[in-house]
Amino acid sequence: MEKLLYTGKAKQMWQTTDPDVLRVVYLDQATALNGKQKDHFVGKGAAANAISTLVFQYLINHGIKTHFLKKVAPNEDLVKKCQMFPLEFVTRNVVAGHFASRYGLQEGQLLVEPVEETFYKSDELDDPFINESATIALKIATHQEIVRMWNICREVNGLLKLLFAKAGLQLVDFKLEFGRLSNGEVVLADEFSPDNCRLWDLSTGQHMDKDVYRRQLADLTQTYAEVLERLQGAIEEENQND
Amino acid sequence: MEKLLYTGKAKQMWQTTDPDVLRVVYLDQATALNGKQKDHFVGKGAAANAISTLVFQYLINHGIKTHFLKKVAPNEDLVKKCQMFPLEFVTRNVVAGHFASRYGLQEGQLLVEPVEETFYKSDELDDPFINESATIALKIATHQEIVRMWNICREVNGLLKLLFAKAGLQLVDFKLEFGRLSNGEVVLADEFSPDNCRLWDLSTGQHMDKDVYRRQLADLTQTYAEVLERLQGAIEEENQND
Repeated sequence: MEKLLYTGKAKQMWQTTDPDVLRVVYLDQATALNGKQKDHFVGKGAAANAISTLVFQYLINHGIKTHFLKKVAPNEDLVKKCQMFPLEFVTRNVVAGHFASRYGLQEGQLLVEPVEETFYKSDELDDPFINESATIALKIATHQEIVRMWNICREVNGLLKLLFAKAGLQLVDFKLEFGRLSNGEVVLADEFSPDNCRLWDLSTGQHMDKDVYRRQLADLTQTYAEVLERLQGAIEEENQND
Repeated sequence: MEKLLYTGKAKQMWQTTDPDVLRVVYLDQATALNGKQKDHFVGKGAAANAISTLVFQYLINHGIKTHFLKKVAPNEDLVKKCQMFPLEFVTRNVVAGHFASRYGLQEGQLLVEPVEETFYKSDELDDPFINESATIALKIATHQEIVRMWNICREVNGLLKLLFAKAGLQLVDFKLEFGRLSNGEVVLADEFSPDNCRLWDLSTGQHMDKDVYRRQLADLTQTYAEVLERLQGAIEEENQND
């Protein structure tokens, strides 16, 4: 029997008959304010999953190790089971969101070097910031693991900044999560969708990510559908040029 | 004419007739909750200054470069003028205070390796955390300067953990600030007193720092006077053993 292991803000994780494989179900819901605001959007789960599948497949094709196995339904994937690090790795190319308000900065300022921040995943503690020395002292990850995870973040940033630019989108910032496979290997896990990144239209500056929900700017599912379409176009174009 | 340059939570900085020298006046006041709570304590300024002078002189004798020149009155020092970095460098040997509440930990747990955290000094922004990548991206300090400041923090921690232990006190955590002299050299600045460190009695665990005020546990000035007396004893003992 399949057992529900975990319900997150936008996904569920289910056991499968294979102990090394989990089934991810993308939900038709979006949350804001760390879960305090929650809404239902028909088709949002499938749109987020379609984008994430496309991005993970693209990263795998470029040598990034991930938990992803395959998409099995519009809003469902199979992934390798891993022990997740309770950490969010945030990479920022442009000043936006919390980073702007935290330091009293204007949104939109380009950062000469990407800013890299980690947060400790804990709903009760409201996902506090955590730096490398605390991560090690609290035995959340080793120095080597942290180095590996940031190296993957940098590779992902390099690849996706270019890919999104081809889709007419600026990759403003994004959040990645990582897990340890049963053999100890650290791989990229979770998802990559407009739920956990900021994308701004390169010509109009229009928000094309979950901020349209957080800030009530546009229809969420329709925005995600457009991101998907543009991304498919960019990847097709890349493949034709290969 | 001497001009008041700045009034902080517990000190004032005055110009002197020498453009490279400032006069620091330690005030008879303590604040908590980032300045929201403020109280007057007769003798507190002199006690904090006496401790800080002793500690800075001790650090200078052990090769640490600081802004300190000399004590000129019970609550007044002369210091080299420097351009302060708007950063607080916090070193934690034991879990306490915000670090405990932020990560849901028990106070008193010894950290195997010290935890090192920086905060961006800004009353309006409530002194937010900041990590190295943001410090560099926001041009607050260079990588080399950050490395130098953490190296001084580590030397200070090594020296003062031992000194305070000789005074029967555990150095739980402390906050340092740094400045750039007119020649560009980065030196330790601000103060070192129980206003910006945590000291616990090694045998009883009793708080011997500003937490007696924050948590209303004991008389502030009397506590600082005892820290001073113990510290003087420890330094005299060291000098006799030399």
